Amino acid sequence: MIKVGIVGGTGYTGVELLRLLSAHPEVQLTAITSRKEDGLPVADMFPSLRGHVDLAFSSPDKADLSKCDVVFFATPHGVAMAQAPALLAAGVKVIDLAADFRLKDRAAFEKWYKMEHTAPELIEEAVYGLPELNRDDIKKARLIANPGCYPTTMQLGFTPLLKAGLIDAGNLIADSKSGVSGAGRKAEIGTLFSEASDNFKAYGVAGHRHTPETSAQLQRYTEQKVGLIFTPHLVPMIRGMHSTLYARLTKDIDNAALQALFEDAYRDEPFVDVMPFGSHPETRSTRGSNMLRIALHRPDGGDTVVILVVQDNLVKGAAGQAVQCMNLMFGVPENMGLQQVALLP
Amino acid sequence: MIKVGIVGGTGYTGVELLRLLSAHPEVQLTAITSRKEDGLPVADMFPSLRGHVDLAFSSPDKADLSKCDVVFFATPHGVAMAQAPALLAAGVKVIDLAADFRLKDRAAFEKWYKMEHTAPELIEEAVYGLPELNRDDIKKARLIANPGCYPTTMQLGFTPLLKAGLIDAGNLIADSKSGVSGAGRKAEIGTLFSEASDNFKAYGVAGHRHTPETSAQLQRYTEQKVGLIFTPHLVPMIRGMHSTLYARLTKDIDNAALQALFEDAYRDEPFVDVMPFGSHPETRSTRGSNMLRIALHRPDGGDTVVILVVQDNLVKGAAGQAVQCMNLMFGVPENMGLQQVALLP
Amino acid sequence: MIKVGIVGGTGYTGVELLRLLSAHPEVQLTAITSRKEDGLPVADMFPSLRGHVDLAFSSPDKADLSKCDVVFFATPHGVAMAQAPALLAAGVKVIDLAADFRLKDRAAFEKWYKMEHTAPELIEEAVYGLPELNRDDIKKARLIANPGCYPTTMQLGFTPLLKAGLIDAGNLIADSKSGVSGAGRKAEIGTLFSEASDNFKAYGVAGHRHTPETSAQLQRYTEQKVGLIFTPHLVPMIRGMHSTLYARLTKDIDNAALQALFEDAYRDEPFVDVMPFGSHPETRSTRGSNMLRIALHRPDGGDTVVILVVQDNLVKGAAGQAVQCMNLMFGVPENMGLQQVALLP
Amino acid sequence: MIKVGIVGGTGYTGVELLRLLSAHPEVQLTAITSRKEDGLPVADMFPSLRGHVDLAFSSPDKADLSKCDVVFFATPHGVAMAQAPALLAAGVKVIDLAADFRLKDRAAFEKWYKMEHTAPELIEEAVYGLPELNRDDIKKARLIANPGCYPTTMQLGFTPLLKAGLIDAGNLIADSKSGVSGAGRKAEIGTLFSEASDNFKAYGVAGHRHTPETSAQLQRYTEQKVGLIFTPHLVPMIRGMHSTLYARLTKDIDNAALQALFEDAYRDEPFVDVMPFGSHPETRSTRGSNMLRIALHRPDGGDTVVILVVQDNLVKGAAGQAVQCMNLMFGVPENMGLQQVALLP
Repeated sequence: MIKVGIVGGTGYTGVELLRLLSAHPEVQLTAITSRKEDGLPVADMFPSLRGHVDLAFSSPDKADLSKCDVVFFATPHGVAMAQAPALLAAGVKVIDLAADFRLKDRAAFEKWYKMEHTAPELIEEAVYGLPELNRDDIKKARLIANPGCYPTTMQLGFTPLLKAGLIDAGNLIADSKSGVSGAGRKAEIGTLFSEASDNFKAYGVAGHRHTPETSAQLQRYTEQKVGLIFTPHLVPMIRGMHSTLYARLTKDIDNAALQALFEDAYRDEPFVDVMPFGSHPETRSTRGSNMLRIALHRPDGGDTVVILVVQDNLVKGAAGQAVQCMNLMFGVPENMGLQQVALLP
Repeated sequence: MIKVGIVGGTGYTGVELLRLLSAHPEVQLTAITSRKEDGLPVADMFPSLRGHVDLAFSSPDKADLSKCDVVFFATPHGVAMAQAPALLAAGVKVIDLAADFRLKDRAAFEKWYKMEHTAPELIEEAVYGLPELNRDDIKKARLIANPGCYPTTMQLGFTPLLKAGLIDAGNLIADSKSGVSGAGRKAEIGTLFSEASDNFKAYGVAGHRHTPETSAQLQRYTEQKVGLIFTPHLVPMIRGMHSTLYARLTKDIDNAALQALFEDAYRDEPFVDVMPFGSHPETRSTRGSNMLRIALHRPDGGDTVVILVVQDNLVKGAAGQAVQCMNLMFGVPENMGLQQVALLP
Repeated sequence: MIKVGIVGGTGYTGVELLRLLSAHPEVQLTAITSRKEDGLPVADMFPSLRGHVDLAFSSPDKADLSKCDVVFFATPHGVAMAQAPALLAAGVKVIDLAADFRLKDRAAFEKWYKMEHTAPELIEEAVYGLPELNRDDIKKARLIANPGCYPTTMQLGFTPLLKAGLIDAGNLIADSKSGVSGAGRKAEIGTLFSEASDNFKAYGVAGHRHTPETSAQLQRYTEQKVGLIFTPHLVPMIRGMHSTLYARLTKDIDNAALQALFEDAYRDEPFVDVMPFGSHPETRSTRGSNMLRIALHRPDGGDTVVILVVQDNLVKGAAGQAVQCMNLMFGVPENMGLQQVALLP
Repeated sequence: MIKVGIVGGTGYTGVELLRLLSAHPEVQLTAITSRKEDGLPVADMFPSLRGHVDLAFSSPDKADLSKCDVVFFATPHGVAMAQAPALLAAGVKVIDLAADFRLKDRAAFEKWYKMEHTAPELIEEAVYGLPELNRDDIKKARLIANPGCYPTTMQLGFTPLLKAGLIDAGNLIADSKSGVSGAGRKAEIGTLFSEASDNFKAYGVAGHRHTPETSAQLQRYTEQKVGLIFTPHLVPMIRGMHSTLYARLTKDIDNAALQALFEDAYRDEPFVDVMPFGSHPETRSTRGSNMLRIALHRPDGGDTVVILVVQDNLVKGAAGQAVQCMNLMFGVPENMGLQQVALLP
């Protein structure tokens, strides 16, 4: 059994980790920390877990995380980098669901996240936890930087085309839409039901932290300088993410070959589903599941390819991807505990 | 392995059966019939099932349901009673999720459902599939009448009080609220998003088919003539059901004893969760799970007891309860394939 | 022109007052106070008001409210009672949308609202602002206690029956459902979109502040001791309130006479719509309008009468009712500025 | 008074016309036709109109539309072209909210709408009813082709840049999102609450009828061949439309000049609101109002300009725009009856 600790179990990625891990056959939930909720049974805060999770939150001071095999950080940015060095030194593996180790460029991190990086010596070692692109490194990793939700969709959507050298990497557009749970479980006016329901808006158009993360990762697959316009929007739904990606083809290729390119790229992937050409994937087809679905379009047969990508932002976009990484790190089947069928309707 | 057939797999209870049964370790999905969709892969209609269900719909004429061990009817009222006699004669067990066998009073059935009963000889044999009240009969049954969604909440909420003789059975009020999926997957104006969203209304106040079903079942537990006022309402949510039940106490009893009565009644039940006295259960704490939750209240310490009951109308209120019955009928663990944690948020 | 001030313009009742008053032909918006937002143009916070409201928020210290003819308090409980005495002394009329003057029983106020009443000398003078029941007093009032949203529905639903002596006043049940805007524009976890959407729950079942307010008002119309069970619920919609009221008839009366009783009671009311017997009013039929709709039911022809009442909680349940009172107080047509057609769909 | 007839009053654009016209001070509603609902009071179908509209639906055969001054067609495509010739001959003006006269290219119409055009002699005369671009022609028109909802946002967003020759007209991208009411009041599975709620998807990516309409209109303002990629999406909200437009700048221009360009273009427009540079307009800021809001962005200061456009798809995107045209055609103030403040929250 893998002994698991969770730091920050009171947010949405925390409770989603609990949903997945409490049913994982090789996991033993060992500690869930929350300074504020010390002593409160987890199921008192999240009644959905009644009968599934018996643990109480414990103060970080009391929880002996060094006895865990792996610790997940479902925390605000900055927490993992403070605690990771000691845990790693104690032989505990670390999976950070926040951004502390996502950017290899320390200066970029400090600019975008407006904080000093306190564990710069670990940045190089950290493995970017996107199994479809980094599986071998993840298997050997001690420290995982779990990708952002938007970046997962953008990378899995653009990468096959970039690797094949088929598109203008300097002119990528990602028009992305997220359910409200992506904003986290924080008391804020802007995500109140009465503000976010029956409404649609863009946000962060001038610049979003997920742009540098995505650009840096995409740059690995092309010689050309990556130019990415990323526009996130807020959708009045709880879970779900839909990225509509636009790229200009620079070579002649027919639709069947485009489709084959994606099918070949993801043929053996347990959690990427390439749908038939011209499909319109719906976010709800991934609700509660770790599956990400992709479909290709070619409007009017022109030189623009439109890639539609959907996922559950809390599963493949966060907690599910983290568990997928854990499975790889500990040598259990990659899909263990992650085979939930999406909840439809 | 239990070979399972589903008649009517294109509705919401059908696709929910598929979600549950495709992950059930002792089930082999054998046939899913739909006259209209003959030949269509099930996962083409419900992409959430891609990778989980490989079957195609088959016309009822082609599907040899007699090779199944059990057939679920997720059909409009009237279909099961037409096909059940032949299936039972062939040794196939039948679980009807519609109303064909819910009412022991044939005349009442024909009045409320406006159709002739074509298999009256089976009415007596049919077992009402509410495991918490009829477990032993279900184990031995060939033919199950799966309860209505509302009646499940009303019965599990009122029965402990009725059995204990504590309330005025002639004066029961059930103010119930259902998510829209309860109306089924039918093309109708009234349940369009633009009609049902951001809206709340009662319906069927003058009389609803679930009233006679519930009254007849409750009558089993009291000598007094049951009088039930039942008011259903439509809530702008997909899944979920909340019944607010009102009963007048006829005997002195303190809150601790009331609470103990319910805890004792459901102590060993895998799918009934009695929450602490004074709790406010939320429907989302059951979303996608087979759990039903109950909480008791006593406003101002008076003689009215308020019982709050929540469930997922498609799981404990329909498909999950049917699978629970199947488990009992085939001697596998009652909770097998039904241990999903609710999806929260 | 009526010079109007608004204290507390940053909440939902505040912005709703602004929507209504900015289009009111006899109103001149004079001051909108907010200590926190001093100097911010109102339309910067609420872009829906761009082009309709040119005022900026001003600090309460700077705003000279004594120059207004009337001041609305769209504030938390306790603010109006602090400021009303000085305003009244300066000849300014006051309409409080909070609870400071709703309860004639000072001790009850202090118990339920957990604060000392600092203007007890005004409690007796304050007029309860429900025009359908108190029109004449409102016309002469200097100080209005605008009713709570739930109490408006309960009183307009029960009163005709109480006045006629037809029901058991000791056994009233109100099962009420409110849209989330009723919780106000406050940063809280419980009303986040991801918490309140796709969910339904009761709250405050053990006791809610609107119970004593309603009971005290209803008591005016019956000799019998009023006994009221009130259960509020939260509906995943922004606006709208639906009360399902249950009463036991104590006299023989047929449905036509019941219907006539209500039609007579509200025949001349501009904002109460008695629908045909057996109707199911929808909350959306009042969305954005000051109309309240009522429909009567008599399940199975028994002795329980079910009264369905719907309104927009922010209009007839709050800001619209307050404007209706203002119109009466200043002798302009009662429906002036209040004739918006509900937004459907 | 303008005597108004409405053909097809049972859909969402029909009921929205009724909401607006019933409160229009210069309009006398004269006839509302529906073959299916002949004789039914309009307010029986739409209770929101109780007390506002006294008319009943009448069969098209009985209604003498030739007595009207203007007739609105809120009908499926193809109805207006069948009836317009006779009405125009009788001196009645016609405003078609469907597509019959939107495309000047008859072959394109017949290809995209899959029907023969039965009044081709009127195509040339029909005026495209977008007041901001065609005001003078609208004033003189007998026959108005009211624009599609999406095309309104795309044209008002792109046109200032095209007119100024600042962008590459061959490389325009419109990623648009619509509330579900845009799909109309039709009984269909795909727009049921249980299908469309808590979900997001693209549709018609391969080709949508609004692309040729928009391209043809945009072509009027540039010599370059217009190339437009248009991707519509369905948002789980009732009303509201958000277009995220992407264009490549071909000339050096700073942000202040860009902003000035839009502010100058729309300075005198009563229903176009250019927000401060870098704003994120929300659809709800237009809910129920005829206002369209625009905001500009320049990610990373690069050569891509992002234009955000929001409107209420049923008002400025349909019925409100039609009333705006009517006002122009009849010489009443352009904003008469259209000054509703958006409903927020």
